[in-house]
Amino acid sequence: MDYSIMKPYDVRKLIREGKITTPTAGMSAGYAQANLVILPKDLAFDFLLFAQRNPKSCPILEVSDVGDKSLKYLGEDINITKDIPKYRVYENGILTGEYTDVENLWKDDYVSFLIGCSFSFESELIEAGVPVRHIEEKCNVPMYITNIECTPAGIFSGKMVVSMRPIPYDNIVKSVLVTGAMPKVHGAPVHIGDPAVIGIKNINRPDFGDPVTIKDNEVPVFWPCGVTPQSVVMNVKPKIVITHAPGHMLITDIKNIDLKY
Amino acid sequence: MDYSIMKPYDVRKLIREGKITTPTAGMSAGYAQANLVILPKDLAFDFLLFAQRNPKSCPILEVSDVGDKSLKYLGEDINITKDIPKYRVYENGILTGEYTDVENLWKDDYVSFLIGCSFSFESELIEAGVPVRHIEEKCNVPMYITNIECTPAGIFSGKMVVSMRPIPYDNIVKSVLVTGAMPKVHGAPVHIGDPAVIGIKNINRPDFGDPVTIKDNEVPVFWPCGVTPQSVVMNVKPKIVITHAPGHMLITDIKNIDLKY
Repeated sequence: MDYSIMKPYDVRKLIREGKITTPTAGMSAGYAQANLVILPKDLAFDFLLFAQRNPKSCPILEVSDVGDKSLKYLGEDINITKDIPKYRVYENGILTGEYTDVENLWKDDYVSFLIGCSFSFESELIEAGVPVRHIEEKCNVPMYITNIECTPAGIFSGKMVVSMRPIPYDNIVKSVLVTGAMPKVHGAPVHIGDPAVIGIKNINRPDFGDPVTIKDNEVPVFWPCGVTPQSVVMNVKPKIVITHAPGHMLITDIKNIDLKY
Repeated sequence: MDYSIMKPYDVRKLIREGKITTPTAGMSAGYAQANLVILPKDLAFDFLLFAQRNPKSCPILEVSDVGDKSLKYLGEDINITKDIPKYRVYENGILTGEYTDVENLWKDDYVSFLIGCSFSFESELIEAGVPVRHIEEKCNVPMYITNIECTPAGIFSGKMVVSMRPIPYDNIVKSVLVTGAMPKVHGAPVHIGDPAVIGIKNINRPDFGDPVTIKDNEVPVFWPCGVTPQSVVMNVKPKIVITHAPGHMLITDIKNIDLKY
């Protein structure tokens, strides 16, 4: 089956039935995918405030009602405990398990945060003719912990994590304009050029993901990354937090192009 | 003294000293002014969630730390209980007083929400050559309760309130583009043309503010209005809520132009 041309609703059905447990990159092309963080209500205000203060690294697409497994905006008939192909559960900051279904862990005071994902702007970059190296090289985007302090909120604080894409000189302005038009999925770059300026010591050794080739006529361009909120949550070592497993996202009913408005 | 050319810090000083108790329109020209809602912490999550779900009518510029009278982003050395020329206090939904200083009412669990204000985009419209009728006619902008349901959040729900500016046909596109570029201060219009479509029965009888002249070559254009969150809070009749008095805003250190990025 070619998942790329299937509607989000149909792909989510296969995921819910346990028939898809793989990363979701490329599935339901043109539709936005989202990161997940589930937290108990007593941490939800601080986390939402953190997102409000750090919208570039933590662009919220939807927050569920307290205790509600469904979503109202991102898609029809979603069960957030079943419709992601792989979940991670962290207890007191330690990964205690990976699951394809977390319904049995759900509690009445849980709140789901769905966070924008750079998949959305990458499809726009490609459409605009800007190369996206980690897709060309079929690996994970390289991500780095920077020296940029996020604005703290309540118990949450930490450094911004960025993703890097090498961009040819004659495409840099275009890449700023294309992604800057999509603030709900990280928006414009946070830095262009010398990695040392934002505290990155070795561009060939990312903190997460894989290194990619940077060609002679290219400059590393850095975008705020959705790993930031996860990393900030982990700093706090909450009693429990449930997230998607890396690359295993929620496929939403929202078209990437609708994230521009 | 010409307050329009004074720096925000200096105007706020006069306000704190009780030397200015009037509406702030036109003061510190070029700098953003903000609406204020102060709520106890137990209502703060629902209110922040309401803002997240209704960013056009409730664009949050800053949320204070719990119990903290200062702000970190909007301005230097702000005391949110003293730096607004006139406050209103509502208890159980009833206006119980107007004050020029509410420091004695402040409690350790209070959270301040500073919300974007259409003054910011009006100065951009004027700069772009688009007439702003209520400024020309030296009255309050006309505001209407619509039939547009806000997305509810926890205990908060209600209809969207809009402000209306009559725009000449040949300036409509420009007014959409100018304000659409400023999503932190309500952004693009929510409706252009026939008031009945959004449930407004009589354009000459606004629910708040003053009626303005609509000329033959002009169309009423409607923007989401910062009165929406106040009206939604009042629906709930919280034990206490402190707001600015209409037109008596916080003058921030942020330039209007910086609200574009």
